[in-house]
Amino acid sequence: MSDITLDQLPLREELRGQSAYGAPQLDVKVRLNTNENPYPPSPALIDDLVETVGAVASQLNRYPDRDAMQLRAALADYLTDQTGVSVAAEQVWAANGSNEVLQQLLQAFGGPGRCVLGFQPSYSMHPILSAGTQTTFIDCPRGADFRIDIDAALAAIDDRHPDIIFVTTPNNPTGDVTSLSEIKKLLDAAPGIVVVDEAYAEFSSSPSALELLAEYPTKLVVSRTMSKAFDFAGGRLGYFVADPAFVEAVMLVRLPYHLSVLSQAAAIVALRHRGDTLATVEKLSQERDRVVAGLSELGYEIVPSESNFVFFGRFADQHVAWESFLEQDVLIRDVGVPGYLRTTIGLPEENDAFLAAAAIIKDTQGS
Amino acid sequence: MSDITLDQLPLREELRGQSAYGAPQLDVKVRLNTNENPYPPSPALIDDLVETVGAVASQLNRYPDRDAMQLRAALADYLTDQTGVSVAAEQVWAANGSNEVLQQLLQAFGGPGRCVLGFQPSYSMHPILSAGTQTTFIDCPRGADFRIDIDAALAAIDDRHPDIIFVTTPNNPTGDVTSLSEIKKLLDAAPGIVVVDEAYAEFSSSPSALELLAEYPTKLVVSRTMSKAFDFAGGRLGYFVADPAFVEAVMLVRLPYHLSVLSQAAAIVALRHRGDTLATVEKLSQERDRVVAGLSELGYEIVPSESNFVFFGRFADQHVAWESFLEQDVLIRDVGVPGYLRTTIGLPEENDAFLAAAAIIKDTQGS
Repeated sequence: MSDITLDQLPLREELRGQSAYGAPQLDVKVRLNTNENPYPPSPALIDDLVETVGAVASQLNRYPDRDAMQLRAALADYLTDQTGVSVAAEQVWAANGSNEVLQQLLQAFGGPGRCVLGFQPSYSMHPILSAGTQTTFIDCPRGADFRIDIDAALAAIDDRHPDIIFVTTPNNPTGDVTSLSEIKKLLDAAPGIVVVDEAYAEFSSSPSALELLAEYPTKLVVSRTMSKAFDFAGGRLGYFVADPAFVEAVMLVRLPYHLSVLSQAAAIVALRHRGDTLATVEKLSQERDRVVAGLSELGYEIVPSESNFVFFGRFADQHVAWESFLEQDVLIRDVGVPGYLRTTIGLPEENDAFLAAAAIIKDTQGS
Repeated sequence: MSDITLDQLPLREELRGQSAYGAPQLDVKVRLNTNENPYPPSPALIDDLVETVGAVASQLNRYPDRDAMQLRAALADYLTDQTGVSVAAEQVWAANGSNEVLQQLLQAFGGPGRCVLGFQPSYSMHPILSAGTQTTFIDCPRGADFRIDIDAALAAIDDRHPDIIFVTTPNNPTGDVTSLSEIKKLLDAAPGIVVVDEAYAEFSSSPSALELLAEYPTKLVVSRTMSKAFDFAGGRLGYFVADPAFVEAVMLVRLPYHLSVLSQAAAIVALRHRGDTLATVEKLSQERDRVVAGLSELGYEIVPSESNFVFFGRFADQHVAWESFLEQDVLIRDVGVPGYLRTTIGLPEENDAFLAAAAIIKDTQGS
């Protein structure tokens, strides 16, 4: 239809030669590459969703509630339940996935001339979102154990004065937790804001950084998502919790009516049925322990995980190993960390298939 | 809960003192302020939507198709039908409302050090989206008749070398159309890309700028939305049509999985029932002509409109007049253009209420 190439368009220079982000969406039997919850929503949730959509559908010709007040109240109620920290609707902000939440925070508090400090390897979208908002991303690499090196972090803060610090805990792709006392050290040193990304919080028994909000109201933002434990990756709902002043701030940069009538209604339904959904978290934690034990028995090295995935190695060439898993019809994730791969905890039979593949691959390629 | 104010947060300097965008969402009997289609979706559409949601709900734990291929094919099919221009799925890109589509285009082709040319008054989000992506917005004001002054536009292009030019046609808030021959003049002169915002295209009998795509594959992008004629403001679905290379470009900046499973499925349902929905467009066009005639009889000045709204005046103080309409329980829009207000075409009884209020206000405040 056209033989125009991207090179012929007046694209921004820094985007030239880049390729689009994204895990391969391949048609493979066992998909353990994007940290989804493998259990489908409960029948009760689906029934409620269908009924709710029927009820709101007649208003689809009208713009949604721009400030999503009912949804934010439901999220606050859930957070109060789950963490024991009393959260009000005014402290919560929601958007289409935590990516959009983080992008809005970067637009308001980062941007040209400002910088972000992160601890790699971590959520791979943090540097990409920073670039997309023209915020300089500074990496303070994690230690050999993949944990944040707090002394190195404090030195980097002192040296670079980051406007934003990203702390992912439990960390993706490694699964380890940064303790509240470590986060407090970063908060005390931070000249700007600290965004604690708790996308996997429900899988961890460690306390939430929400406990620190009262002490650091002008600095701390805790971001979360319904994509992981909440079984709602397809619904695209991320949120943050902070002082209400942070909500006022992102309202200056959010796209008006960013959350559809259906997104708001469906998330409220999912929160209403959280009992069903979060029951799967316990099953997944048990499966994680089983997968860790299995990998360990096979002689793999495993990073201690409080999440629904396991980071394991070592491989002489992790990309070759990733391809070997794919040949066994098991799709896991190569995040580009030499020697290591990440696997999501799936259904028991998926984990069996993964462990069987891991046994074959250990024989041929493990180091 | 907290007495922190926005001033205490390290917000970007240029955001300080700003207030959040958005038409007031007030509880008023007659709401004619956001150019929605007042007819609710058809019962057949709602039934299909409920059934479809029931079918996709069991996959809500999985991320959506990141590239929304099925939806883009449905949009291409619709566009081919509606405009007579053959459009392929690869030429279409969709996001959460045209705001997100335009933001992605600005991230890829605008940004720091680059500039946008617009013709004000026009869609008020264009300058806001430009600011949000650090793109300098240059205004080339419309003439006294609210039409683009092509000579002034060509001079501005020659002088400022804009990376992006925004042309809204039919224009919001004025309703007038920029002809294809005028758009061609802008395309010929443009050093960068031209985004023709056709949010209200279905209300106009003028040809779509899609007819120019084959001639200007490296320059022309046509953006559209399902929020207006399509009766789907609550569903949040905007899209653009251009050479496939433009789709590749925005894929470098889009947030992965930006469109939820429900957004994609619901938009496909809405497109399937376009016969029902677009039948309301004809009714609204007839009502527009009736409202224009009524306002004219009352002695108002009206800008010729090919949209579902009417821009009318003149008022000694349009904001005082806007408040007078509100006192009559009629919410219309003050877009900040001295002397003029914008009213959306509603249901016949809403338009009656509007005209009755306009008669009262003309007696007391018309000039």
